[in-house]
Amino acid sequence: MPDILHRVGIRSQSMQPVYHALTTQAGLAGWWTSNTQGEGDQVGNIIEFRFGAGGFDMKVAALEEPNTVLWELADGPPEWMGTTISFELRQEDQYVILIFKHANWKEPVEFMHHCSTKWAVFLLSLKSLIEEGEGKPDPRDIKIDNWN
Amino acid sequence: MPDILHRVGIRSQSMQPVYHALTTQAGLAGWWTSNTQGEGDQVGNIIEFRFGAGGFDMKVAALEEPNTVLWELADGPPEWMGTTISFELRQEDQYVILIFKHANWKEPVEFMHHCSTKWAVFLLSLKSLIEEGEGKPDPRDIKIDNWN
Repeated sequence: MPDILHRVGIRSQSMQPVYHALTTQAGLAGWWTSNTQGEGDQVGNIIEFRFGAGGFDMKVAALEEPNTVLWELADGPPEWMGTTISFELRQEDQYVILIFKHANWKEPVEFMHHCSTKWAVFLLSLKSLIEEGEGKPDPRDIKIDNWN
Repeated sequence: MPDILHRVGIRSQSMQPVYHALTTQAGLAGWWTSNTQGEGDQVGNIIEFRFGAGGFDMKVAALEEPNTVLWELADGPPEWMGTTISFELRQEDQYVILIFKHANWKEPVEFMHHCSTKWAVFLLSLKSLIEEGEGKPDPRDIKIDNWN
C-alpha cells in the first residue's frame, strides 16, 4: 500500500522536547494546527485536529517514550480511513532524527500527493518549534496549492 | 514499488513558465540547484545536477509540452538507480497544478524519506520562482536534517 514518508533532523540534545510536542495539546497546537483538542500522552486517547473546513480525529494507538508515537485515524476524510501515522525518534549526535510515515493509503490519489507535500511543511514547522521556539501551525502563509 | 508523491499549485495563468522552468538550464538552476548543466528541452538530453558533494545525471525520457516532463536517472546514488521522476502539469483556474512523482524506488530506505521531504522544499522553491520571480535553489538555509 502507498505510504507517505519523510525524514527531518531537529537540532536538540534530547528527544524529550520533540516527544512532548507530539504528545501534548500545547505541543501539537504549536506546529500542526492551533485548533487541537485532547492530549496524546495516553494510549487510547482521541486527539481532535481541526482546520478551516474539516479535520481529523486521531486515536493514540501506541507510545514508547521518547521514541515512538503511533496514531490510527478515528475519523476524517474517506481517503484517510484505515491509515496510520507514526513518528519514530532517535538521537544522532546533536540531532533528533524523526522518521515519519503516513501509511496504508488505499490508493495514491491526488489528495495523497497534496498531503505528502503538506506533511513536509508541517514537519519543518515542528523543527522550527523545537529549534527556534516557534512553529508555523495551520500555515496559511505556506499555501502549497489551491486546496490549502 | 514505493514512490515519492507531491502536489503543488502555482499561481500562473499559463503552464508555459512552469514547463520552461522544468526544461531549461536557467529554469532548473533557479529552483533546484544552481549548479545545473544541460538543457532539458529535447528527449535524450542529459542534464547534470550537482550539489555540494554529489549529484545526479538525468536523461530526458519524455516531453509533452506544456504538460509532461519525464526523466530517467542516468547516473547518481545507488538508491536512485532505476528511478524515474515525472512532472505532470494542468491548468485549474488561476493555478497550474503540478503532480510530482519520483517512482520505482527499490526499497523505502531512510534516504527515500529524506528525499521526499527535500523534494517538497524544492517544489515550493519552484512555486516561489514562478510566483515571485525568485526560487531558493540548493537551499542551505532550509536544512531539513543532518544530511543537508
